Amino acid sequence: MNARIFRGDVRLDAIPADDRGIAYGDGLFETLRVHRGDVPWWRDHWLRLQSGANRLGFPLLDAALVREEVASLFADGGDGVLKLLVTRGAGQRGYAPPTDPVPTWVVSRHAVPAAPAQGLRLHACATRLAAQPVLAGIKHCNRLEQVLARAEVERAGTDEGLVLDSAGNVIGATAANLFAFIDGRWVTPTIVDCGIAGVCRARLLPALGAVERLLSPADVESADAVFICNAVRGILTVARLGQRAWAPHPAIAAAKIELSRLHPSFAVGSA
Amino acid sequence: MNARIFRGDVRLDAIPADDRGIAYGDGLFETLRVHRGDVPWWRDHWLRLQSGANRLGFPLLDAALVREEVASLFADGGDGVLKLLVTRGAGQRGYAPPTDPVPTWVVSRHAVPAAPAQGLRLHACATRLAAQPVLAGIKHCNRLEQVLARAEVERAGTDEGLVLDSAGNVIGATAANLFAFIDGRWVTPTIVDCGIAGVCRARLLPALGAVERLLSPADVESADAVFICNAVRGILTVARLGQRAWAPHPAIAAAKIELSRLHPSFAVGSA
Repeated sequence: MNARIFRGDVRLDAIPADDRGIAYGDGLFETLRVHRGDVPWWRDHWLRLQSGANRLGFPLLDAALVREEVASLFADGGDGVLKLLVTRGAGQRGYAPPTDPVPTWVVSRHAVPAAPAQGLRLHACATRLAAQPVLAGIKHCNRLEQVLARAEVERAGTDEGLVLDSAGNVIGATAANLFAFIDGRWVTPTIVDCGIAGVCRARLLPALGAVERLLSPADVESADAVFICNAVRGILTVARLGQRAWAPHPAIAAAKIELSRLHPSFAVGSA
Repeated sequence: MNARIFRGDVRLDAIPADDRGIAYGDGLFETLRVHRGDVPWWRDHWLRLQSGANRLGFPLLDAALVREEVASLFADGGDGVLKLLVTRGAGQRGYAPPTDPVPTWVVSRHAVPAAPAQGLRLHACATRLAAQPVLAGIKHCNRLEQVLARAEVERAGTDEGLVLDSAGNVIGATAANLFAFIDGRWVTPTIVDCGIAGVCRARLLPALGAVERLLSPADVESADAVFICNAVRGILTVARLGQRAWAPHPAIAAAKIELSRLHPSFAVGSA
């Protein structure tokens, strides 16, 4: 991993043991798709990070400094994935946040994941997402639910998982939002009490004329087409959920064309 | 902070940026009271750590190696607080746990917190604990709920907080369990869907002949006496919750005497 670590504007070699990120998952992150050294959806991710920082009470990072480091990491003008992690920084033992936190932040460069050769198989995860409106929507670092759900996916030998909230409503995949084509329209679960409001999801909602509503597993199974999406991989077609199989559907092809207009990394045929 | 960091049996200077503790709070911790270089409740904490490791799918640490480092940290035979933090170790980007994780672990020595001069004032926290039975009871590192609740306590200028679950039942304080003296008996909230099953709580339950049951905020307000407890500070008398004030009560004095028989650090008069 090609990573650079800072606390405030001071570069560090590694993360000190007193960091609140390691102690309590007291942090936020963003994962961004880089296209020829550029980050087309930078502003979307930055705004969500700021929203999370406001919610958790972190000071904002120096945007110019972060952008400078990102530019330097991708100075070769290459493609890739950028992860930006921010924690509340150093703290004493105990939950009380420091009064003047200096955030720790890490920028790291990763390879673009391989495009799947065919539609994804989803496992119906038993791990549910707890209802916690105070933390819902933002991309914080308390992710044990997703870790446990993804561990189920690994054991099942599928590509991703369908994750429900504690009431049994569909929220999405472990690391992606979900859209289902129902009665000629794209529908995506509301993100109110749990789940992450994805940047790709937010871009696709208006582009596809999609609507947000409660979705049951039965709604997804009876949908004419299903895809999952995130800002790193774009739209990924779902081919199976348990015994339910979907054939390729023109609505997904059309959605991919819409997405290709929104982000150059997702040009149709390129992934 | 006097801390020693290891990944497996290799000593590190700091925590690498690829650690799953920093990425996802994918870890567990224990905070133990050390008495003259010894840890009287070591086995209780170790069993809870193992239980958490089983739940999250971590391999167990080398107990002998950990004990050796702890002994070395407290080789002066002093009193103090020991924190033991364990994470799933290094990982690739993404939630999928590594197939052969080598846990990162940190032992650190801290001062014993000052004993309060008088009974504690509790703030009624607005932050609720989400119901997540998969994670309840164990001391994992996804602690943003506690961080946000404790931030409320700081803003309120009180000593600790009363924290409820999403259904409105009392769970405890932000960093302690709670006992209420009701109809001549100690009662403590059941820990099923959220909260931490504390080591001190588990020791006190049989010693006080206490019972576990659902407790409402009204039950606590109308109780004859209330204390909170944890393995670092023992029993702490609650004097106020909002407008409700409690005078010293002989049942708390008796509970402290019981506790002093269970752990030498909590000898009556010493804290």
